Amino acid sequence: MKVAKFGGSSVADANQFKKVSNIIKEDKSRKFIVVSAPGKRFDADFKITDLLIQLGHAYLNDEKYKSYYITIMDRFQKIIEELNLTEQLLKEIENKLKNTLTSDLADHDKLDSVKAIGEYSSAKILSAYLQTEGIKAKYMNPKDAGIIVEKDASGAQLLPESFNLIYKLRDEEGVVVIPGFYGYTNDGILATFSRGGSDITGAIIAAGIKAELYENFTDVDSVYSVNPAIIENPKEIRVLTYREMRELSYAGFSVFHDEALIPAFNAKIPVCVKNTNNPSASGTMIVAKKEEKEEKCVVGIASDTGFKSIYVSKFLMNREIGFGRKLFQILEEEQVSYEHAPSGIDDMSIIVRDSQLPDDKEELIVSRIKNELKTDTVTIHRDLALIMVVGEGMKETIGMAQTATVALGKAKVNIEMINQGSSEVSMMFGIKANGLNRAIKSLYHAFFE
Amino acid sequence: MKVAKFGGSSVADANQFKKVSNIIKEDKSRKFIVVSAPGKRFDADFKITDLLIQLGHAYLNDEKYKSYYITIMDRFQKIIEELNLTEQLLKEIENKLKNTLTSDLADHDKLDSVKAIGEYSSAKILSAYLQTEGIKAKYMNPKDAGIIVEKDASGAQLLPESFNLIYKLRDEEGVVVIPGFYGYTNDGILATFSRGGSDITGAIIAAGIKAELYENFTDVDSVYSVNPAIIENPKEIRVLTYREMRELSYAGFSVFHDEALIPAFNAKIPVCVKNTNNPSASGTMIVAKKEEKEEKCVVGIASDTGFKSIYVSKFLMNREIGFGRKLFQILEEEQVSYEHAPSGIDDMSIIVRDSQLPDDKEELIVSRIKNELKTDTVTIHRDLALIMVVGEGMKETIGMAQTATVALGKAKVNIEMINQGSSEVSMMFGIKANGLNRAIKSLYHAFFE
Repeated sequence: MKVAKFGGSSVADANQFKKVSNIIKEDKSRKFIVVSAPGKRFDADFKITDLLIQLGHAYLNDEKYKSYYITIMDRFQKIIEELNLTEQLLKEIENKLKNTLTSDLADHDKLDSVKAIGEYSSAKILSAYLQTEGIKAKYMNPKDAGIIVEKDASGAQLLPESFNLIYKLRDEEGVVVIPGFYGYTNDGILATFSRGGSDITGAIIAAGIKAELYENFTDVDSVYSVNPAIIENPKEIRVLTYREMRELSYAGFSVFHDEALIPAFNAKIPVCVKNTNNPSASGTMIVAKKEEKEEKCVVGIASDTGFKSIYVSKFLMNREIGFGRKLFQILEEEQVSYEHAPSGIDDMSIIVRDSQLPDDKEELIVSRIKNELKTDTVTIHRDLALIMVVGEGMKETIGMAQTATVALGKAKVNIEMINQGSSEVSMMFGIKANGLNRAIKSLYHAFFE
Repeated sequence: MKVAKFGGSSVADANQFKKVSNIIKEDKSRKFIVVSAPGKRFDADFKITDLLIQLGHAYLNDEKYKSYYITIMDRFQKIIEELNLTEQLLKEIENKLKNTLTSDLADHDKLDSVKAIGEYSSAKILSAYLQTEGIKAKYMNPKDAGIIVEKDASGAQLLPESFNLIYKLRDEEGVVVIPGFYGYTNDGILATFSRGGSDITGAIIAAGIKAELYENFTDVDSVYSVNPAIIENPKEIRVLTYREMRELSYAGFSVFHDEALIPAFNAKIPVCVKNTNNPSASGTMIVAKKEEKEEKCVVGIASDTGFKSIYVSKFLMNREIGFGRKLFQILEEEQVSYEHAPSGIDDMSIIVRDSQLPDDKEELIVSRIKNELKTDTVTIHRDLALIMVVGEGMKETIGMAQTATVALGKAKVNIEMINQGSSEVSMMFGIKANGLNRAIKSLYHAFFE
């Protein structure tokens, strides 16, 4: 039994729905289908979810909302007409939207319910279309599927009892289509996951039914070894481990947010990234453990900008038991989450995302460190980019650091920071952001060409 | 005004005392002389201080102590006779020793007082010899010099009021000879510094009198760029900054313990390491800041064995605010001082000296980390060596990491760990200890040949 999740671009218009239907027909084991809301059809297009969010805010604030409403309904009408589905279905979607807007839910809950209508509609349309294509298919509400959650500021959190409920879905006959992105609380209130939440729903269903495979359909043939915006036609990755995926997606791999896959990872279910527009391409498998050692020990190079580092030095720091703990305590008290914290004898650097340390907080942290830890120096280094060179086999291979540093030297990129050995699957380099493209090109050349 | 400190080998026998006298004569600004106890004359020889410690312990435990007593007094007698000094001086030393042993001091204080007799005697002998050489010189008790301390388990700690007292010594006429290694509490009890304490006395006097230079006379021509036990005749270092010295001496540079120099460092007094046996060699200057940029940005390569690392991994570690703090808190509670702690996204390595983590403590720490932090993995990696490549100019120089990693690759040494960027003056490599000599040879070749 497989779970297949189709992202926003896979259900952006009627033609995409047809591709999805063909993919489902092709493999009888694709039994549980999770869908996103319709995404962009072209660069300047709107995502249905963004339109719904704007509609909800405008409605709640008594602002003009009609244009959003019409844009949304026009979009669904076009899809439904082009798929030759009944007007009744369009009415059903419109009623859902109206009823939700005028319901007596609390504002925050109402907003969540409005946001979720994109996925609801995708699932309704797909299940109806599959039926016209002669497939025994049915729509299933996430509540009936067993996705029970708790509301939380950072998005709905799944309750563990869900997995047992979801396991019962195995007895369903035919194809089951479930909207992604949301669940219900025990009180029956709809609650959405964080953004990218359809991936979460897919991973939850896969874990719950103990799927043999979780297929994640997107609009790329595979996960690439490096950002295609920097290198044209980069090498595709055939197999990745969870840990490799996590290190890569940490630093700017945008296929999906790796944390969305946690439920599948925890249940040790293999994940396959595939392309709705080219389903015969083999895609990228993400697994707990590779069966064979690969020839290449580097599988990918990820990078991201928008980091700064806090450099702290104090004479005799490493003799001062408790220094590290006190420093981290200050960060914790100020709710600053840090990325890396390489330390030397008398120095320590703490790398944070810019978003974690806006200027006012930066000032506060710097002065707390100075005053409470009596340091000699606290300085901030800005405009950093991080590069992660990732691969499970790296740890045992002599010369990996050499290959990387030689490549960066050739690109005339000064290495501000190297962190190797703390992770067994990656090597981290910190450089000035303005050298990033040069650096990545040279690293790609060294490891993949 | 200069302070000159002469180490144990510089006063090991009469001939060495003569060299010291000549060095003092040569430069009228060498006004304050600090001496160690007589050290080894040859490899199998005993240091006077070690003999005194054994004498003290034997005496206090009612064991046979006469042989130590005789060995010590014979040694002083030989020095005094060969320097043609009076028998009265020998009597004075012997009385000091006898009176200390039979005094009614508490055991611990008595032991400190016995240990200090080596330095006391060196200073007595040197001042007497200088007088016979026509130099106006006098012995000065550390109490009279103003070295006021507090007793502490890790050695005497200087009280800050000492510096004002010591400053008054500037008015003394002639050469002042002060025994190193000890001071007095406000109650008049003698207390010794930690081992290497004559260096501390020298640095304190230099800071107190605001010396233009603190000369540290040893038995090597200079600080070397790499351990001479691994590389024959390595390049000498002409100028070092305090920070460079600290990073080098951290990892096995044994000229002196860098922490002994802290009082001089804090007072920004330049330190010169010179050779009593070859005083015309220019030695190594250790300064707060170099006047000119050096051509070479690497000044030295230090290394040390006897490290292990605790590797901790936990999925989503970097999202868990407080993880680092909790980990360091466990180390703090168990009184484990760590050396470096490079961290990745979901991993962290903590490098500790073997001595900090004996097997029973290791077991305790591993189980506390597992239980309290709910980590996925905690493993111990043993037999590590650390290599520090040190130089103030490194930060701005492209290709330093490249040169080092290429050299290690050539030596077929696998790099377990790289930590660059947390310190502005060093780059750290962790390797398996059995590859150390190979690694150092290759790095030395790359940076210095």
